[in-house]
Amino acid sequence: MKKYLILGVAMLGALAANAQQALWGAAPVVSPEIHPDNTVTFRLKAPKADKVQVTGDFLPTQKIKTPFGEFDGPGVADLVHKDGVWEYTTTAPLAPELYSYTFLVDDLKITDPSNVHQLRDVASVTNVFIIGGDYADYFKINDVPHGTVSKVWYNSPSLGMNRRLTVYTPAGYEKGDKRYPVFYLLHGMGGDENAWTELGRAAQVLDNMIAQGKAEPMIVVMTNGNAALQAAPGESSLGFAAPSIQLPKTMEGSFETHFPEVVNFIDKNYRTKASKDSRAIAGLSMGGFHSMHISKEYPDMFDYVGLFSAAIMPDKKVKSPIYDNIEGKLKVQFDKKPALYWIAIGDKDFLYQANTEYRKMLDDKGYKYVYRESPDGHIWKNWRIYLTEFVPMLFKK
Amino acid sequence: MKKYLILGVAMLGALAANAQQALWGAAPVVSPEIHPDNTVTFRLKAPKADKVQVTGDFLPTQKIKTPFGEFDGPGVADLVHKDGVWEYTTTAPLAPELYSYTFLVDDLKITDPSNVHQLRDVASVTNVFIIGGDYADYFKINDVPHGTVSKVWYNSPSLGMNRRLTVYTPAGYEKGDKRYPVFYLLHGMGGDENAWTELGRAAQVLDNMIAQGKAEPMIVVMTNGNAALQAAPGESSLGFAAPSIQLPKTMEGSFETHFPEVVNFIDKNYRTKASKDSRAIAGLSMGGFHSMHISKEYPDMFDYVGLFSAAIMPDKKVKSPIYDNIEGKLKVQFDKKPALYWIAIGDKDFLYQANTEYRKMLDDKGYKYVYRESPDGHIWKNWRIYLTEFVPMLFKK
Repeated sequence: MKKYLILGVAMLGALAANAQQALWGAAPVVSPEIHPDNTVTFRLKAPKADKVQVTGDFLPTQKIKTPFGEFDGPGVADLVHKDGVWEYTTTAPLAPELYSYTFLVDDLKITDPSNVHQLRDVASVTNVFIIGGDYADYFKINDVPHGTVSKVWYNSPSLGMNRRLTVYTPAGYEKGDKRYPVFYLLHGMGGDENAWTELGRAAQVLDNMIAQGKAEPMIVVMTNGNAALQAAPGESSLGFAAPSIQLPKTMEGSFETHFPEVVNFIDKNYRTKASKDSRAIAGLSMGGFHSMHISKEYPDMFDYVGLFSAAIMPDKKVKSPIYDNIEGKLKVQFDKKPALYWIAIGDKDFLYQANTEYRKMLDDKGYKYVYRESPDGHIWKNWRIYLTEFVPMLFKK
Repeated sequence: MKKYLILGVAMLGALAANAQQALWGAAPVVSPEIHPDNTVTFRLKAPKADKVQVTGDFLPTQKIKTPFGEFDGPGVADLVHKDGVWEYTTTAPLAPELYSYTFLVDDLKITDPSNVHQLRDVASVTNVFIIGGDYADYFKINDVPHGTVSKVWYNSPSLGMNRRLTVYTPAGYEKGDKRYPVFYLLHGMGGDENAWTELGRAAQVLDNMIAQGKAEPMIVVMTNGNAALQAAPGESSLGFAAPSIQLPKTMEGSFETHFPEVVNFIDKNYRTKASKDSRAIAGLSMGGFHSMHISKEYPDMFDYVGLFSAAIMPDKKVKSPIYDNIEGKLKVQFDKKPALYWIAIGDKDFLYQANTEYRKMLDDKGYKYVYRESPDGHIWKNWRIYLTEFVPMLFKK
């Protein structure tokens, strides 16, 4: 009897103390190391490499040429080699932000083997770290009450499939019988129902803003805006297929048409305030396009509308009743005086001009909206900031 | 008005068709490619590399020397270089399984840039793919009704913190007022509340087995067994810190002592059948140790107990009332005749001898249990298989 109690104790001790690298594959260097002054050191053990670089959005942008124009892309910095370990420290403290980066080893792009914290954006995986302070403190997991994040499947008769949602319910939802307003939060092209919680830190933003009394406790529903798909890559019956850039059913009306099925599902299965003044919809890029069309198509559904860097540009070749009589439908929507119609865009966004034209049309008609212009382009930095600005305005009527 | 509708259409079209690599960073080769005969080709574009290898559990194991003995580790195969692209095809079709792999580029371990599907196991990130068939079909996401997977926070007064759980509720839970049995499923040392859904495919196993009528619809609760931590790496107020191998509160009684707080939280917040005959507990390695101690400590709580490769080896230097009078408590537990006491281990597991001793003690006392011995060692392959075998036996009394 005694023997089985002590068998292997020495081994377990050794495991816990020494085995991390041997058995669990941890990398032998610390990277990234965030110093007290918010400079950051990146390290990679690669004795046989000829060149190691780091690329990420913490570096000054550089122009990237593509077949359809030049874009601002992440900069590149060289790591210095010493005794098998390559190293680079930022030349200045980094501003508060959630940053992403990868290494380039002899031009091969790799993630940092020392950093298990990664994010997928469409077909690209990068490492991530946070410099706290300012709005970036909303992205942190602080010691505040946490909401629940659920992956929930709903049935869509019109799309003929079960589909996956991410649903955030605020801390305290489980207890009691209180009803909550609902914020529908939509992703961009190539994104999915995971994008806003992973890249957008939506659960952290809501947890922190609710705890600070800056936002109303609310349910947040994050859909999958590609009406051809059930779910995010790796989460559907497509299995571990590569994320597809073939997105046949993203901006052709199906998603917008089916949207009441989502709202009905949420109202049926959650303790919602099922009325227009307790519903908001917003989205980034394609999700802004969807939010515009859904909110005008169902003018009694949403009192709060947010267009974040909205892709206000349907393909005229696409035929859908959703895109018919846009002016007439907008008139109906704005005649009902939405509580908030919020348009935000970066001054370097490739959709800046399209949004300017759209705003001019709204101005010409005398439709009321709130405009927010930020620096930078079509990037998650802006969308996370917009979220922290949009959420406090909701459900305050 | 018309202008804003068509602005940028060409650009969006170009984006959708061509921009994946330029803007979204997809790798330029397909990897892994699973052929119709279940051979698999791995590819890496790395023109400047001198040597590229693939390592993973689909290859024959090789001995890995560590300070505390030799272990079976994943094998290594060389990729062949042609025109900048390295390639390796398995010499034979692979058997059904969820496999993981990484590349070694001039001895630097990297994940496959062409495969966004990755899993973290403690401090190591690997790529993953599934070869279907046999029990591996349970790991796939099939077109069956899907349960909800939630990340839920509960308060632990005894541990003095809010802590994170993964909770699976079966398809149909949201509708109606049916009550469900609960299966508590525990991870191993270095794991966390994400381990069973990510590495263990627990949600897929449950979805598929419930849909096929092989398992009762049940709630599955996956805890974090390190009583010093709130949550998995990246999911607590520690932020994006590296996973720690310092695990001070894993096998010293705190987790076991606090466990009724979890059960009470679940019974209070979910529609459970709150009785012994509707509760199961099982765990792998350290989680098997926890399951053994929790089930004997609270002999009226669990009717179904599963020890998967259990680490039956407390450190005798650790003092906790949990580890006092083990024989007396086991007598109480077995006198109450648990519906199932299931012990499973691989014949190459380093805990094989400890489990043999434990079973001998149970035999000597005349305590009834079911024993399952499998091939292989202390690996997730076994734990996933055990899950598919344990779940159908639950709540059938």
